[in-house]
Amino acid sequence: MFEKITIIGMGLIGSSLARNIHKKSLAKTLVAADFNEEVCQKVEDLCIADQVTSKLASGVEGAEIVILAVPVCAIRDVMREIAPCLRDDVLISDVGSVKMSVIQSIQPLLRSGMEYVPAHPIAGTEFSGPEAGFEELFQGRWCILTPLPETSIKSVEKITALWEKCGSMIEIMDPKHHDLVLGITSHLPHLIAYTIVDTANTLEDDLKSEVIKFSASGFRDFTRIASSDPTMWRDIFLSNKTAVLEILQRFSEDLTGLQKAIRNDDGAYLHKIFTETRDIRKQIIDQGQSE
Amino acid sequence: MFEKITIIGMGLIGSSLARNIHKKSLAKTLVAADFNEEVCQKVEDLCIADQVTSKLASGVEGAEIVILAVPVCAIRDVMREIAPCLRDDVLISDVGSVKMSVIQSIQPLLRSGMEYVPAHPIAGTEFSGPEAGFEELFQGRWCILTPLPETSIKSVEKITALWEKCGSMIEIMDPKHHDLVLGITSHLPHLIAYTIVDTANTLEDDLKSEVIKFSASGFRDFTRIASSDPTMWRDIFLSNKTAVLEILQRFSEDLTGLQKAIRNDDGAYLHKIFTETRDIRKQIIDQGQSE
Repeated sequence: MFEKITIIGMGLIGSSLARNIHKKSLAKTLVAADFNEEVCQKVEDLCIADQVTSKLASGVEGAEIVILAVPVCAIRDVMREIAPCLRDDVLISDVGSVKMSVIQSIQPLLRSGMEYVPAHPIAGTEFSGPEAGFEELFQGRWCILTPLPETSIKSVEKITALWEKCGSMIEIMDPKHHDLVLGITSHLPHLIAYTIVDTANTLEDDLKSEVIKFSASGFRDFTRIASSDPTMWRDIFLSNKTAVLEILQRFSEDLTGLQKAIRNDDGAYLHKIFTETRDIRKQIIDQGQSE
Repeated sequence: MFEKITIIGMGLIGSSLARNIHKKSLAKTLVAADFNEEVCQKVEDLCIADQVTSKLASGVEGAEIVILAVPVCAIRDVMREIAPCLRDDVLISDVGSVKMSVIQSIQPLLRSGMEYVPAHPIAGTEFSGPEAGFEELFQGRWCILTPLPETSIKSVEKITALWEKCGSMIEIMDPKHHDLVLGITSHLPHLIAYTIVDTANTLEDDLKSEVIKFSASGFRDFTRIASSDPTMWRDIFLSNKTAVLEILQRFSEDLTGLQKAIRNDDGAYLHKIFTETRDIRKQIIDQGQSE
């Protein structure tokens, strides 16, 4: 399907993508690159790529497609390092959870003839590293592409084909809009989960140990979300600052509304809100995005 | 094991308890009582009790043990209704998620010779109603008892034995302390989940439909929690007002800290907090309270 693909960054997403490309023979040569030697060793042991290297620049030499699967704040530095070695007609893509800032990191470093298709597979778990990846991660999940006005249709089709082979469903979206939608569905929930677990973490020792011992369903789910990769999430919040802060403002207003209702014993208001939120769950289940 | 047990309230918890008592023959006679005729009909169809009645007062006649499994704000009214028909040596228990307010509802209505053991099985799903119950719900989960100073050891042992037969592990706790611990592990997470889904629900229509379509892992988990029974949760927040408002205050302070860090590009602070929260998850998994 492709001559040579290089994936940079062998975390959960990068290694899951590698598993797909390798297993389904989507490229004649698949290069897995990661600046971390230990990660490279693990990837070699997993046998999910034809070549493994910690030298990013030499890893991209001759590659038809280069996929950047590193934390979003690292993308600019990685691009600077690999730019001199990229093929003149290379097709770049990424998997970042934020699109505006990533586009701003990559676009200025492209030479004429190079193409870039920003992509975001909406898939993941709370685990990280190459061993955490698995082939079925993208099955039945959305992959959002946010192509630039100057991107050719041919390049968009290539990245579409690649992700469809991994089991993804493709949606095209404006990058700024993507950052707002994901700010609500993913970034805010993670920030809130981190906060609530942080609140528990700063409790007096006795209380904290009981909170862990008797962790009920709500809290347990939050701790799972709040165990996601710290570097990746730090980068997401810093890169999607505007959207996250805007949505956080709305959230705080809604929380104040519920807080006031509890303080004033306004059971009718609480019941109304709690009934409306049930309906959203139903719609998500109806659309097959949850079990 | 017991002569006659009456369970009032045939929701998720009540019906799961009934399934255990019925299947494991823990009582010679099990009466399932619910003021809702439709619910009674469903319980009859499920064949999980010896008798089913919508007349609560007659349902408790001659019962050795009466378990109140109704939303916590309904407990006072139910107690008033059944009090005249209770056996003089009845043992009352409940399954409420809040203990202080429930104790205040039940205790003044007890006659001399009657005993009361407040209980809270920490188990549940986002589903409600008698069909949502299942026998394994309490397996390996904690059931917290918050006995009163005047409660006899014999009564505590009876309720302990009942829940252990259902697969629960028993812990004794002070009721006020229980309300604080559960406020953190269960009530606050639910309030936050309801808020975030409420925030999504009040978005402009276009954005809202995309949020549903592309709901990522964080948000999906929140919608599950926020689809829990509205009446039950309204009652919990109104009944555990003091603890919930206190914890909410701590949460808001922590959220403001993270918000400020995002605004000021303080990546080091974000990374520190996100790393600490991972550790709590690890402790919960180590204690076997999560998969």
